[in-house]
Amino acid sequence: MLREVLKSIGPLDEKVMEAVQKRLDSLTKPLGSLGRLEAVVKQMAGVTGNPYPEADRRTIVVMCADNGVVEEGVSQTGKEVTASVVHNFSRGITAINVLSKHSSADLLAVDIGIDSDDLFTGVLDKKIRRGTWNIAKGPAMTREEAIRGIETGVEIVESLKSQGTQLLGTGEMGIGNTTTSCAVASFLTGAAVEKMAGRGAGLSDEGLKRKIETVRRAIVTNRPDKRDAIDVLARLGGFDLAGLAGCYIGAAFCRLPVVLDGFITAAAALVAARIEPSVINYILPSHGSAEPGNAIILEELGLSPYLSLEMRLGEGTGAALAFHIIGAALEAYKKMGTFPEAGIEQYVPQL
Amino acid sequence: MLREVLKSIGPLDEKVMEAVQKRLDSLTKPLGSLGRLEAVVKQMAGVTGNPYPEADRRTIVVMCADNGVVEEGVSQTGKEVTASVVHNFSRGITAINVLSKHSSADLLAVDIGIDSDDLFTGVLDKKIRRGTWNIAKGPAMTREEAIRGIETGVEIVESLKSQGTQLLGTGEMGIGNTTTSCAVASFLTGAAVEKMAGRGAGLSDEGLKRKIETVRRAIVTNRPDKRDAIDVLARLGGFDLAGLAGCYIGAAFCRLPVVLDGFITAAAALVAARIEPSVINYILPSHGSAEPGNAIILEELGLSPYLSLEMRLGEGTGAALAFHIIGAALEAYKKMGTFPEAGIEQYVPQL
Repeated sequence: MLREVLKSIGPLDEKVMEAVQKRLDSLTKPLGSLGRLEAVVKQMAGVTGNPYPEADRRTIVVMCADNGVVEEGVSQTGKEVTASVVHNFSRGITAINVLSKHSSADLLAVDIGIDSDDLFTGVLDKKIRRGTWNIAKGPAMTREEAIRGIETGVEIVESLKSQGTQLLGTGEMGIGNTTTSCAVASFLTGAAVEKMAGRGAGLSDEGLKRKIETVRRAIVTNRPDKRDAIDVLARLGGFDLAGLAGCYIGAAFCRLPVVLDGFITAAAALVAARIEPSVINYILPSHGSAEPGNAIILEELGLSPYLSLEMRLGEGTGAALAFHIIGAALEAYKKMGTFPEAGIEQYVPQL
Repeated sequence: MLREVLKSIGPLDEKVMEAVQKRLDSLTKPLGSLGRLEAVVKQMAGVTGNPYPEADRRTIVVMCADNGVVEEGVSQTGKEVTASVVHNFSRGITAINVLSKHSSADLLAVDIGIDSDDLFTGVLDKKIRRGTWNIAKGPAMTREEAIRGIETGVEIVESLKSQGTQLLGTGEMGIGNTTTSCAVASFLTGAAVEKMAGRGAGLSDEGLKRKIETVRRAIVTNRPDKRDAIDVLARLGGFDLAGLAGCYIGAAFCRLPVVLDGFITAAAALVAARIEPSVINYILPSHGSAEPGNAIILEELGLSPYLSLEMRLGEGTGAALAFHIIGAALEAYKKMGTFPEAGIEQYVPQL
């Protein structure tokens, strides 16, 4: 199934983007003066093929999974916190509950591999397994599981698209997933592990050192094949990363604009872009997180964040904030007057 | 009047800020992980003295004025565009009309010195004079006019506060005001004119060169007194800058949080901060504009923008976008659950 999906991902609709540029240039403002808001509108149009792209129906998908590597002491809390936080998604009290609502987005939490047999109310059960194996000792998962994770993401996006979602955001919850993301991203980009690794939710100096050593060990132990991003994902990643990579691929397949969150989502997007480079055209950035590796990955992807808020919470919180900006861009594009309406001669560069 | 206002500007309410920090640390998230959103909430609380600050009632004040220096050929359009755009504020078709509405803010355009006798529907008439004099040849205005401009800003903010505004944004419209802002800001910061000057709405290379020379000439001709920001404003500034500086001073006086827009508002904030340094505590940044001087002034003010969108439109458009982020910060702070509610042990740094 994945092969078919990848084959049918096409380029952006250049014709529609040209039409959008014309309208942007006719709006009563100096040429190009809405800056990256204009690029947002153009990209949304190119993705959807709609010269007046809509983003009223918004969903944030939060991939939730546990990571075997937590047993190495690379996180400041125990793995049981993953399940606790996901229960709190159901109870509506987490940051992403509040921020998704505030940005008019539905929240869809997905259990793609939480290490718990709990029933999570209102959470989509797509559990592959109760957490990955410890990447410091061997592969996180089998290749089949990695593909299943990706396909799960694709299927979720297809389903959301068919239910009317017009703008997709991504997020994650999984103790230990900055470690797996660090492993995947430093291996794929070639960046030094100590530059890619950060404190996650608030690791001590000692913990950060242990995290860096663990990631190095994981890379040496697993010897992934750099030209095969699915292999890298299977050996060093997590089910959340697999599901997220599937969301980006699925978004490109369904021609649905999709918004990154922070470091973990960026690592997953990097995997998706290495599987199929044209996926990147369908992705919009959101914020530059406090995790140092985030900037490295975004640069590799050719993306620059809209927001600079030093957040390091994940869950899709940065995507939720970016939705406001994307919504504003579309609103300005659709509702501003044009020069003929305004009775002003168009601004053109003069000597 | 201004002297009395300045005397009564106090520090932020540290006690309330401490209480806010406690609640922030009790919310079900890693400590500090909402980054600058947490700082926004604390600042809003310190400004208002309210541990649960409100920002539902929002107003963006747009100071509109003409600048005599336009006769030097420093702008890509003629000065008549100021009046045209202000008419379009009345007609609801400009970027700030759309973006203020999208961020649930009222728009208050103020004619503080448009060079026109037109009646501008729905625009507050506080015209000091029909445009300033040409700063390349002498002072922009008298010292009395500068003070009157500042006092106008203060009075408008007092009036908005008494009518219920809880969050203030600032913007401007005035052909030639990147030139006056450049003159004021490069003189006050000591930064080289060629580093402070930008293309404004889209100046050519030739035009930019002329702008830089004009600003240099204005500084040499006027010889303002660096220790006297009102003198600098009167000699090199504009009525819009005076009104905006008054808005920042008025916001500090009324304990109302006030949000910058881009380069011109930053230059006005610099004037306000040189008149009374504690004003800066009441100001929130918004975006980093494409105008190169914006970053220089923000650094001087110790502010870092939330948004990086390469916008260069003014009108308060960046402030309108920042309102979404500020609103989200308050929402998360008020509506997230606390650790006791969440049934999770608080995240604390561990070895």
